[in-house]
Amino acid sequence: MEAGQFITFEGGEGAGKTTQAKLLCDALENAGVETLLTREPGGTFGAEAIRDLVLSGSNERWSGMTELLLMYAARLDHVEKLIKPALARGAWVISDRFADSSLAYQGYARGLGAQKVKELHDTIMDGFEPNLTVLFDIDPILAQKRVEMRGENLSRFDKQDIDFHNVLRDAFLDIAHQNADRFVTVDAGAGREAIHARIIHVLTMRYPSLAGKLSASND
Amino acid sequence: MEAGQFITFEGGEGAGKTTQAKLLCDALENAGVETLLTREPGGTFGAEAIRDLVLSGSNERWSGMTELLLMYAARLDHVEKLIKPALARGAWVISDRFADSSLAYQGYARGLGAQKVKELHDTIMDGFEPNLTVLFDIDPILAQKRVEMRGENLSRFDKQDIDFHNVLRDAFLDIAHQNADRFVTVDAGAGREAIHARIIHVLTMRYPSLAGKLSASND
Repeated sequence: MEAGQFITFEGGEGAGKTTQAKLLCDALENAGVETLLTREPGGTFGAEAIRDLVLSGSNERWSGMTELLLMYAARLDHVEKLIKPALARGAWVISDRFADSSLAYQGYARGLGAQKVKELHDTIMDGFEPNLTVLFDIDPILAQKRVEMRGENLSRFDKQDIDFHNVLRDAFLDIAHQNADRFVTVDAGAGREAIHARIIHVLTMRYPSLAGKLSASND
Repeated sequence: MEAGQFITFEGGEGAGKTTQAKLLCDALENAGVETLLTREPGGTFGAEAIRDLVLSGSNERWSGMTELLLMYAARLDHVEKLIKPALARGAWVISDRFADSSLAYQGYARGLGAQKVKELHDTIMDGFEPNLTVLFDIDPILAQKRVEMRGENLSRFDKQDIDFHNVLRDAFLDIAHQNADRFVTVDAGAGREAIHARIIHVLTMRYPSLAGKLSASND
């Protein structure tokens, strides 16, 4: 069996990341792989406290750079207290969002500049990165409809308009292109089972030791 | 009259910075200078919320780098929302602690390394720095006694031992030495009135337009 792997799911709101992360976690557990499912911002007690600060209040409560610093404080707590210890004991970790979200949201979409965000990232993270990142790519109009259908309380990011989500979509595609070894892009406009099957396929190709053990839950 | 100036007071706990900041603020106001007295961590609503997160909990709640990121998030909110607008309208700003405290505490004393902290600082602050920094230098044993005499609730930093405070003292002296144009070091073991008179003298020398207007409150 492979050593612990760190897999992140990225993309805009309404792309189905959270649902797919749960499905993959179950499939890995069924294959006998210890799996930890987590999310950003949040994931640890400290990071959740920071998350509450970031997501509460009006859009203008924090400047882009202040928000980025809070996100990285939460991320570092998450990495040091939860992700790295789990990987060290051989568990696989699936995180619903990670650093690429900061690069897309704060770097591209909120105008800090990708270079500034990368500079900060490199200073803080000391080369730590996911083994695999799955990008959920979807037309923002379809994604918006999904969010509305969920009827959830919209967090701050959801209130932004369609233009913002288009900028964000292009940002994620650009980041995936620049990190082609680490990224796999999936069509998140497809159905739930089709997306899950695609992710299982990607993992089986990438980790041959999983072949025959990992199967899509609807097989 | 000079344009708005940004003056910071630095040093360990129990050095009398807070008292002296108030005295200087009064002296400047009496000289007809609009003055804003503030402090770190804190100074704005957002920064105070972050401050509560940083100072609560056990010593091990946050790693050195996570704490540094939270401090800089609070600092940036403080700079953008309070300090820069005040300077822009011509006010003088006195801050009880600023970025040199992060360099001394997290960079030197908590072992992140001065280089790492400077790197982060430069990425975030875009060259913004105080016009003048007054370092309150004092023997840590004397400072500890003062803190105990105040009978205040000790914050997290106060609980550290004397060795820690000695490292911190050396750190501040080193930072002052490396930024000699910006720093003035005062003997904080002297009496309250003597320190105040020394600071008034420093300001009068540095800002000739204040001569004759600025006088120590006990003159």
